[in-house]
Amino acid sequence: MSIEPGDTRQRRRPARAARVTGELHQRPFGRVTRPYKPIEVLSADNVASLHETALKVLRDIGMRVLEDSARDHFRRAGAVIEGDTVKLDPALVMERLSTVPQSFTLAARNPARSLFIGGDDVIFASVGGPAYVMDNDGGRRDGTHAEMCDYLRVIQSLDIIHQEGGGPFEPMDLPANTRHLDLYRAQITMLDKSWQTQTLGRARTMDGLVLGALSLGLSMDELTRTPALLGIINTNSPLQLDIPMGEGLIAMAEHGQVNVITPFTLAGAMSPVTLAGALVQQHAEALLGIVLTQIVRPGVPVMYGGFTSNVDMRSGAPAFGTPEYAKAAQASGQLARHIGVPFRSSNVNAANEVDAQAAYESQMSLWGSVMGGAHLIEHAAGWMHGGLTASFEKLILDAELLQMMAAYCDPVVVDTESLALEAIRDVGPGGHFFGTPHTMERYQTAFYSPLLSNWDNHPNWLERGSVDARMRANTIWKQLLRDYEQPAIDAGRLEAIDAFIARRKLEGGAPLN
Amino acid sequence: MSIEPGDTRQRRRPARAARVTGELHQRPFGRVTRPYKPIEVLSADNVASLHETALKVLRDIGMRVLEDSARDHFRRAGAVIEGDTVKLDPALVMERLSTVPQSFTLAARNPARSLFIGGDDVIFASVGGPAYVMDNDGGRRDGTHAEMCDYLRVIQSLDIIHQEGGGPFEPMDLPANTRHLDLYRAQITMLDKSWQTQTLGRARTMDGLVLGALSLGLSMDELTRTPALLGIINTNSPLQLDIPMGEGLIAMAEHGQVNVITPFTLAGAMSPVTLAGALVQQHAEALLGIVLTQIVRPGVPVMYGGFTSNVDMRSGAPAFGTPEYAKAAQASGQLARHIGVPFRSSNVNAANEVDAQAAYESQMSLWGSVMGGAHLIEHAAGWMHGGLTASFEKLILDAELLQMMAAYCDPVVVDTESLALEAIRDVGPGGHFFGTPHTMERYQTAFYSPLLSNWDNHPNWLERGSVDARMRANTIWKQLLRDYEQPAIDAGRLEAIDAFIARRKLEGGAPLN
Repeated sequence: MSIEPGDTRQRRRPARAARVTGELHQRPFGRVTRPYKPIEVLSADNVASLHETALKVLRDIGMRVLEDSARDHFRRAGAVIEGDTVKLDPALVMERLSTVPQSFTLAARNPARSLFIGGDDVIFASVGGPAYVMDNDGGRRDGTHAEMCDYLRVIQSLDIIHQEGGGPFEPMDLPANTRHLDLYRAQITMLDKSWQTQTLGRARTMDGLVLGALSLGLSMDELTRTPALLGIINTNSPLQLDIPMGEGLIAMAEHGQVNVITPFTLAGAMSPVTLAGALVQQHAEALLGIVLTQIVRPGVPVMYGGFTSNVDMRSGAPAFGTPEYAKAAQASGQLARHIGVPFRSSNVNAANEVDAQAAYESQMSLWGSVMGGAHLIEHAAGWMHGGLTASFEKLILDAELLQMMAAYCDPVVVDTESLALEAIRDVGPGGHFFGTPHTMERYQTAFYSPLLSNWDNHPNWLERGSVDARMRANTIWKQLLRDYEQPAIDAGRLEAIDAFIARRKLEGGAPLN
Repeated sequence: MSIEPGDTRQRRRPARAARVTGELHQRPFGRVTRPYKPIEVLSADNVASLHETALKVLRDIGMRVLEDSARDHFRRAGAVIEGDTVKLDPALVMERLSTVPQSFTLAARNPARSLFIGGDDVIFASVGGPAYVMDNDGGRRDGTHAEMCDYLRVIQSLDIIHQEGGGPFEPMDLPANTRHLDLYRAQITMLDKSWQTQTLGRARTMDGLVLGALSLGLSMDELTRTPALLGIINTNSPLQLDIPMGEGLIAMAEHGQVNVITPFTLAGAMSPVTLAGALVQQHAEALLGIVLTQIVRPGVPVMYGGFTSNVDMRSGAPAFGTPEYAKAAQASGQLARHIGVPFRSSNVNAANEVDAQAAYESQMSLWGSVMGGAHLIEHAAGWMHGGLTASFEKLILDAELLQMMAAYCDPVVVDTESLALEAIRDVGPGGHFFGTPHTMERYQTAFYSPLLSNWDNHPNWLERGSVDARMRANTIWKQLLRDYEQPAIDAGRLEAIDAFIARRKLEGGAPLN
């Protein structure tokens, strides 16, 4: 790790740096349950129109399904197959949707960190899939395995993150064909939280399933009856399911694990320029993937992924955390509830720096997602550059945003004590509430304690070095990394994991897709 | 104005700076109407409990009302007066509430900029009341009259700002007793938008009312029948209405103008540490002020102001844009709707820099306010440092946030054309939507165009100078200032305004409160 401004300052002015860093305030790991009704951006009629139009897309246009065995599954279930195109009758779709579970529990290595998905709960998963890593000190760059392990350590240390999101960035110092094995080992050993598998092709997926089972001390048969692993399946929009994703989906479903079917429908590029049209296409593609999971294994848990955003029509660049994104997330939640499938959304942005833009685009995403009724928010922490980069500082910024959303979801307590009529009477006109018994009994837990926010008055803030949020985030992740403690793991399980990885490396790992 | 990094770069690298600045995208001035139901953080029973408890506060504890004529008004209306304490019977409160108009229109100097307040509309007003000014170039400092005029020019130029918020900061180069007269003249001449009066004492208020009437070409009698001016009345929490605010309230109401009754209830300091208790106290104080307006002039427009936030219990510093703030804003909206009074909320934050914290706290405030059903969002643009400072860059950041909220409030269009079944069929699996007729007919207006956001890919962003959001905001307000055009004003009206101001300055202005 390079020497960064924060460290330098800490050595120069220990007292001030300590004030900047302070004691880190974290909300304990636990369920986040939204007590408010989701925002509905569509009327019930509009939801029905979108759903019916998507069913027409699947019946009349169909989707290309490139994986042979996936088409075989559809054929046996009664779908119309024309070349590599699969067309689904609305009745077939609706019948298969009836077996989707509305909620389920994902087992984590630490049972206290198992996750309920469904109801009004929302799960925050860290960033998955970027190519690059970034921090204040080194800017954006190819990442290494050592840096990836550091990133996972911070994820483990941030209590607001429920789940690891499938590999934060590519460790470019490792060979591509076995990289996933090293990732899985790091996910299992650096964390005791739930983690996501990579679903690009059958081999990578199966390796994740085997290692997941070993990490939980389960046989493959037991795993099939125990939802524990979750994998993101992106359709190749418009209207295609490619071979690696088809393989991943089938392997996950066969083993009772959770596919998150997520069309990548950027309005104006891979889907119609109208939000309604993009949502119709998203819904059609998601329905086909969800139906496939239920054909492979009726009753297997599956999630509806909404990722509709738009491109900047001037440059063609993807835009995230926009007003359209917030509306699409909330509309997607309505569509998912319409068909009774748990809903996944995301915390996305297209900013280049951990600045005001990164914050306001992420906030638009989070309000869109949380108040859209999302059960899983993927990329909830760390995502930058439209998904190309995982940032250490963004992890901290997002942890603050997530903690704030969790605190927002703590219901307002209204009872005789909290209404405080007697306290108001005791203090009376012109008094103050500092130090009164009613205040003293409650002040330590009354309000949200921030992780990142600084509420110094301005002269103090200047005196303490004018440390902005991005620089404070840099100090915080380094403190978390210093304080990290690796969770214990059963020695026998670790041995089995290492033996499996050694064998799979000898075999050459996974083919490159 | 000092030379800033943006200007320097522009001279060195004109082509690149132009790309950074680009063409400024503004949503045209116009109504913003929320098509979604407000978020309800309280059950109907809880709303009733809070309201009933507030009525008990007014009946049993009462409020100190320091202004003699205000107590006289209450006495004549049947209130119980004990010393300077006013106690209100619930029946009296509810009877007086029945005359409050649920909506009204505020006349602006440019009739196209008159404002409807009520229904599902939301009005964005700029920052009002800070002591200091701040920008990237000079940091925080005492402001001058010239800088204040520049600030008003930027407010006029930002189309998303509906109303000026009552003076952005103190022009410290002007004498305190006549400063308000120079402010009013600047508000009238730099802007053709609606603006707010200063309501600290009768003299300042009356000067604003006279100048407002002159600016609109109205007699004082005509003004009384024409809502045009809006003033913020803060109670002196807990449970006090002081003399200057009492005078301001009465003068505004007597002349048919709009008081915004806003208790300053920081939970844990000026109100109970529990959110429910702070809201009870806010509601009681707001009710008393609202009732007084209706006693002074039944049917006069008035607004319910919610400003409940909390202090940081470790330092005593006020915290804004917190989870508690968002919940309090939405609960306040429920309380205001419960009594049928238009609702005012705010865009607040406690950040020290225009950084990620400023953005995420403001976003919490805006989602709290807009989805709390606010009809007026005060401090919607420019507010920093918990209200002590008006920032030029924050004006731009907030304009972006407000434009995004306005675009979020554009309903999703669902009809045959937008559902795009034929476009999806035409493109088919594996195609793309760039350049299709369905896209080409719509792409120019399909999506939100940002004012501040930069969606360059990362290599381009680095190549173009790594300009973060705060620095871009600096470039943008300077461009707006360069392009500013002063709105025309009727010569006769201006002459009358200047004559009045000259006379009032000779008289010595207003007493210092």
